[in-house]
Amino acid sequence: MKHVGTQTILFDAPPTILETSSIVGPKESQGPLAKYFDQCLDDEFWGEKTWEKAESKIIKENVNGVINKSGIAATDIDYCFAGDLLNQCISSSFGLREINVPFFGIFGACSTFVESLCLGAVFIEGGAANNVLCATSSHFCSAEKQFRFPLELGNQRPPSAQWTVTGSGAAIITKQGTGPFITCITPGKIVDMGIKDANNMGAAMAPAALDTLITHFRDTGRKPSYYDAIITGDLGHIGKEILTELAETKGYNIKANYNDCGVLIFDKEKQDTHSGGSGCACCGAVFSGYFFRQLKEKKINRILLIATGALMNSTSSQQGETIPGIAHAIAIEN
Amino acid sequence: MKHVGTQTILFDAPPTILETSSIVGPKESQGPLAKYFDQCLDDEFWGEKTWEKAESKIIKENVNGVINKSGIAATDIDYCFAGDLLNQCISSSFGLREINVPFFGIFGACSTFVESLCLGAVFIEGGAANNVLCATSSHFCSAEKQFRFPLELGNQRPPSAQWTVTGSGAAIITKQGTGPFITCITPGKIVDMGIKDANNMGAAMAPAALDTLITHFRDTGRKPSYYDAIITGDLGHIGKEILTELAETKGYNIKANYNDCGVLIFDKEKQDTHSGGSGCACCGAVFSGYFFRQLKEKKINRILLIATGALMNSTSSQQGETIPGIAHAIAIEN
Repeated sequence: MKHVGTQTILFDAPPTILETSSIVGPKESQGPLAKYFDQCLDDEFWGEKTWEKAESKIIKENVNGVINKSGIAATDIDYCFAGDLLNQCISSSFGLREINVPFFGIFGACSTFVESLCLGAVFIEGGAANNVLCATSSHFCSAEKQFRFPLELGNQRPPSAQWTVTGSGAAIITKQGTGPFITCITPGKIVDMGIKDANNMGAAMAPAALDTLITHFRDTGRKPSYYDAIITGDLGHIGKEILTELAETKGYNIKANYNDCGVLIFDKEKQDTHSGGSGCACCGAVFSGYFFRQLKEKKINRILLIATGALMNSTSSQQGETIPGIAHAIAIEN
Repeated sequence: MKHVGTQTILFDAPPTILETSSIVGPKESQGPLAKYFDQCLDDEFWGEKTWEKAESKIIKENVNGVINKSGIAATDIDYCFAGDLLNQCISSSFGLREINVPFFGIFGACSTFVESLCLGAVFIEGGAANNVLCATSSHFCSAEKQFRFPLELGNQRPPSAQWTVTGSGAAIITKQGTGPFITCITPGKIVDMGIKDANNMGAAMAPAALDTLITHFRDTGRKPSYYDAIITGDLGHIGKEILTELAETKGYNIKANYNDCGVLIFDKEKQDTHSGGSGCACCGAVFSGYFFRQLKEKKINRILLIATGALMNSTSSQQGETIPGIAHAIAIEN
């Protein structure tokens, strides 16, 4: 592999995404992409006593699912990269404590899924691994409780708020394969433009997405038209609009092929999810469930997936801090 | 690089740890290793209004310190790997939001420092980067508030409790250099032996340390005597004793050259820190301040550094969960 431009890594022997799997909660199961997910849950608890335990079960079962689909034995997976939104990433560590695979915990907020793919691809291309597992999860109820208010309070959500996706996305990347290939990655910098509203994450994260998007184009010499689809993770309706406008002011017209997982996963008119989906599982499940299948079926052949994350917590907001954003990009091609 | 045994990666052209830096708080400044740290703080706030902001300042200034000491321009650092103990790793993301380096957030609890060195080394050896920055922090006051009780409550700490180190460790790894070299890494699996006492982390993490230690020896064919020093991150006095005994039952006698950063950083008799130090900065600052200097001065030439982490949070403990542990090992040699 080689480092090109300021922050992009190009792969000489691009790793293959061998298989993906997705599980989603009841809200996502009523959305436009429902038929693409591997498993749709009827309720948020899935037989567990708490939302946190339910989220752990979701990532655990989804990882079992992707391993089964891949045909690769768990013992042949060299390393696992996983993380989530819960404090100290407990969904991942409790959900994956039994798989017996060396584990790298990562935290990129809602950018975690693409962060895991970036790290996994570098490990494979570098010769450190033959097969890696990448996984993430989020849960609407555990996220609301932790980042905003307990659901029992019945707080009203402002129109700019997004709905954390309940679910998980997981992928197995392998050295030998016939694609879709991870051809390059552009890991992002932390960008903080001074947004303080924790109910407007799209606006807080859009500048980071812009920074990574433009850097990717500059580093690779590619143009927006190179890709069949440019997809952000969870900017939602407001963030999508902001990114489209910001990109245009920088000379990049992405209107023709740009969309956002948070916009795609819910029906804005019928589902009362305000500005759209968010959370680690938004990008994770929509890519694993929908876009991976589109790539496998050659309906699209080149996708730039840019997952965005808001690197704050409830304490930082209470202490008057702004919301730093980050965005990691990965190009996946047939 | 090549993958050997079940989970170890051997480097063909081992990356060099070019420089390290450390900052510690007032308690650590009264301990036996005080003279080795780059900066010792007089109080826990360092001019900030909150402990969280102080922790962010500590990692920020420590990263500036290691960059200055290294002589490498910040613009020549390709990627940064950092994480900490605070919810959503805000110490790292707020502390490093201005350095303008592509950022991978990681979470391995107190194993974070070695996790960052592992990932950084793979990036360099694989050709993805020429220079990487690795950093971590922890803070006694913010950790007590978040994981146990607010300090204002004046809770009594049981004898098995450890004292979270206030401080930061940071390192710059580079492709070209004259050592000390990172020769191999053994990333660990999650190990949960059913310990539930959040005031006895040493016992909870020792089985993970054992698993990684033995795997490292099996994968590499090395014996304990290969190393001048085998150093765990923060098992503390109780965990150190448990690991020593467990290793012996498995046929590995490590008594002659084994110690723990949490044991070394405080004076057990005079400092009232009970079972010793803990936290991301325990391993981070003790390696960056003390062991790196020992390596540079050739007082020791081969060290196996095993950082341990407890992958729980306060919610998981309240929900009756056990404490999963993890340990990542890295061999550093002249």
